[in-house]
Amino acid sequence: MLNRVRSAVAHLVSSGGAPPPRPKSPDLPNAPSPQTAAPPEAPRSPPATAGSGSAAPAKTVEARASFSRPTFLQLSPGGLRRADDHAGRAVQSPPDTGRRLPWSTGYAEVINAGKSRHNEDQACCEVVYVEGRRSVSGAPREPSQGQGLCFYYWGLFDGHAGGGAAEMAARLLHRHIREQLKDLVEILQDPSPPPLCLPSTPGAPGSSDSSHLVGPQSCWSSQKEVTHESLVVGAIENAFQFMDEQMARERRGHQVEGGCCALVVVYLLGKVYVANAGDSRAIIVRNGEIIPMSREFTPETERQRLQLLGFLKPELLGGEFTHLEFPRRIQPKELGQRMLYRDQNMTGWAYKKIELEDLRFPLVCGEGKKARVMATIGVTRGLGDHNLKVCSSTLPIKPFLSCFPEVRVYDLTQYEHCPDDVLVLGTDGLWDVTSDCEVAATVDRVLSAYEPNDPSRYKALAQALVLGARGTPRDRGWRLPNNKLGSGDDISVFVIPLGGPGSYS
Amino acid sequence: MLNRVRSAVAHLVSSGGAPPPRPKSPDLPNAPSPQTAAPPEAPRSPPATAGSGSAAPAKTVEARASFSRPTFLQLSPGGLRRADDHAGRAVQSPPDTGRRLPWSTGYAEVINAGKSRHNEDQACCEVVYVEGRRSVSGAPREPSQGQGLCFYYWGLFDGHAGGGAAEMAARLLHRHIREQLKDLVEILQDPSPPPLCLPSTPGAPGSSDSSHLVGPQSCWSSQKEVTHESLVVGAIENAFQFMDEQMARERRGHQVEGGCCALVVVYLLGKVYVANAGDSRAIIVRNGEIIPMSREFTPETERQRLQLLGFLKPELLGGEFTHLEFPRRIQPKELGQRMLYRDQNMTGWAYKKIELEDLRFPLVCGEGKKARVMATIGVTRGLGDHNLKVCSSTLPIKPFLSCFPEVRVYDLTQYEHCPDDVLVLGTDGLWDVTSDCEVAATVDRVLSAYEPNDPSRYKALAQALVLGARGTPRDRGWRLPNNKLGSGDDISVFVIPLGGPGSYS
Repeated sequence: MLNRVRSAVAHLVSSGGAPPPRPKSPDLPNAPSPQTAAPPEAPRSPPATAGSGSAAPAKTVEARASFSRPTFLQLSPGGLRRADDHAGRAVQSPPDTGRRLPWSTGYAEVINAGKSRHNEDQACCEVVYVEGRRSVSGAPREPSQGQGLCFYYWGLFDGHAGGGAAEMAARLLHRHIREQLKDLVEILQDPSPPPLCLPSTPGAPGSSDSSHLVGPQSCWSSQKEVTHESLVVGAIENAFQFMDEQMARERRGHQVEGGCCALVVVYLLGKVYVANAGDSRAIIVRNGEIIPMSREFTPETERQRLQLLGFLKPELLGGEFTHLEFPRRIQPKELGQRMLYRDQNMTGWAYKKIELEDLRFPLVCGEGKKARVMATIGVTRGLGDHNLKVCSSTLPIKPFLSCFPEVRVYDLTQYEHCPDDVLVLGTDGLWDVTSDCEVAATVDRVLSAYEPNDPSRYKALAQALVLGARGTPRDRGWRLPNNKLGSGDDISVFVIPLGGPGSYS
Repeated sequence: MLNRVRSAVAHLVSSGGAPPPRPKSPDLPNAPSPQTAAPPEAPRSPPATAGSGSAAPAKTVEARASFSRPTFLQLSPGGLRRADDHAGRAVQSPPDTGRRLPWSTGYAEVINAGKSRHNEDQACCEVVYVEGRRSVSGAPREPSQGQGLCFYYWGLFDGHAGGGAAEMAARLLHRHIREQLKDLVEILQDPSPPPLCLPSTPGAPGSSDSSHLVGPQSCWSSQKEVTHESLVVGAIENAFQFMDEQMARERRGHQVEGGCCALVVVYLLGKVYVANAGDSRAIIVRNGEIIPMSREFTPETERQRLQLLGFLKPELLGGEFTHLEFPRRIQPKELGQRMLYRDQNMTGWAYKKIELEDLRFPLVCGEGKKARVMATIGVTRGLGDHNLKVCSSTLPIKPFLSCFPEVRVYDLTQYEHCPDDVLVLGTDGLWDVTSDCEVAATVDRVLSAYEPNDPSRYKALAQALVLGARGTPRDRGWRLPNNKLGSGDDISVFVIPLGGPGSYS
């Protein structure tokens, strides 16, 4: 995430390029705790995923706490050094030997050109088995009773101000999702509508929903229809929140000082759920058509939410910032003149007479990649950042950042997908220099050069996308073929074929 | 606005169908005041609109304060009685004699089937001339210097809990827009980018924008590009706010006790601005294609904004409401069980253990036309409602209602419009029983029955749309041809041909 956290960049600059102190990788409890909601290591589903199980046991991750790359890259110590080389910027992918990623997913990544010591992107690809916590009826579960659920999971985590938050999210977020889904195992497998109310404890009688209906004439006596899909969306939303809360709790002990954007995909029961908090992006390329599966959350796209919060809770601005937006900084000598402004309710601009408090620094300022909240951070959703303060101040930024993702759902069963239909996930290192259309063109060019049943085609595509965004070193920088600057940021890409489980694994 | 304000409906029911006391029509000052920003009567632009000037002088509106319909209907006392007849529900349109509405706009309306004593919809169609307040340079204006601006204006106002707010908005909102545009007259006619800063007083030196640039490297030293279009959007947004503030100030003296949805169209310098606050709707039908030009603001579509406000300002809930949403009312005996819920951050649902405060009434409840904020009101944007309280309580609703419209812009110059391309505005009485596609089909059917240059075709279309939504009286109610219930609400429709000024006037 290049130029994304001003304080971090300032640190690099002021120390002459020396890296900032790197937070120690957190050593998280592996046992679940009702208090911390830290979920245990996910048991994998052996029958369904024998050929695609990708992740090494979690303790392997913890063993190389000083610098980690995704375990599915299976990097040797020498490979790890090469992956960490800012000069060479070698593109990394899982080896052809060994297990393939689920669905023959393609993956590639490259380190930044020097903006931070290590690659602060992280990635995770897992098949997660969810065992139900209890039966819906409240009766204790018999081992033979019902089946658990399996979900496929891909996650990209773009860290800033250190790699700690991204590493922690890559290791734990899918377990939080599993934890949230545990109560839903039976409900999701039952075609009847989800119960609105569940008994408090196993064995207690559940309440019948329809018995509480009074009549349809008044607004509060009706009952809403809740879909299975919306339960999964709610589970993912809450998992993000629990992950963020865990980071808040454990940030002191484990020095999880940074934050990260999170883009995750969950495939469950025929549907693909894409959850995004930050400025990574997901698109589906289907028969050449582009289907956006996420939107970016930045100070510009979330201006009105941020301004509303500053307006309703002025104490969060500490007397240093104004919630109003101005098209440029106001000079003290302009007091009394009339300046264009926008408040939390406006999308257009109007003139207002400049008053003393308008001279405060604007809560939201800048444009494009230079847009910032409180002059500090350029993304407005993600995990972590609990220690983030306004530069030279004790004012916390976190209340303005939201950990909640936007979740979009794509029903895989509604279309007959061909082997060239893919879901592409990328961190902003890809999208800063590559348009959706350019990605779709690369999808077409690369996949058509491979046999449809060649499982290595998706890895080749991921590599081509990363290479295309990185460019080659010449003319004082990494350059694209058109001589424009390539991305100097960390770049990570997943290419997920949409044939679904069974078709390619 | 049928079933829209529960308290009003409850009043009707409890008094055996007798109408609630009707607020006296406000008698507003016609002179502008810097404090109240009540703009004066708009001078009309004689040369451009001689053939289309539609509105009678404002004093005519005020003369029939006890029950008013739009002046352009030119209703005689007998016609006014017929328009007020709930049994006959005669469709009203401007007469064929006399001046046509600008652009040969079609208009039709019908009163409700008995839910309120009078038709609480109001409409306005004006050509408004804006004289600049001062020159951009700050120098006093010479009479010969520059030209004023002319805008075309259409407004639909759907009142609730009385017709006072809708009447006041129909009479004054376009003047507030004119007032906001006064400062922009020269700026909008100057093709160079708008100045970011203006001198405080005429004659004072303006500040040069580029001289304050520090450098491009930091976020706050850049300057945003502000378009002419966004200035018009800002002017409309602020005009809505000034209108609402005027209603708040004058509500006691003039008993403007109700509120209204507002849907207005401004045509200015080649662009159509559609501003909507409430649940009216505007669509363009162009070559058979439907282009939505507004969205509805209801407790359902604005759930998360409302919940966030209740969460951040719990004092607004008065200890009586919870900001959480539940799919149905919780019973006290369910305490401790687990119920589905959504908070301000969630689009999905999850289970939570029911606690004591979850038994409070939900801030947002119900679905569709029965959705309510604080069990009281079914729209979340509009003008007025400053006296609206939660039923049997002193808790005000207004903080949850927003007067700010969403403004969409349509550039008329980007397409070559044919005489069958129209912008259709309708209050919810139309859209409750008519889909966008049905409207488009009616557009095609009616317009094809008329010569393209017959200016009466748009009035015929508006009448057909109103008749199609009203139906005919049979089987205990107004029925559509398919025997479904027609709309018992007030129904008002504008049909605006998109040929623009000069083409049809």
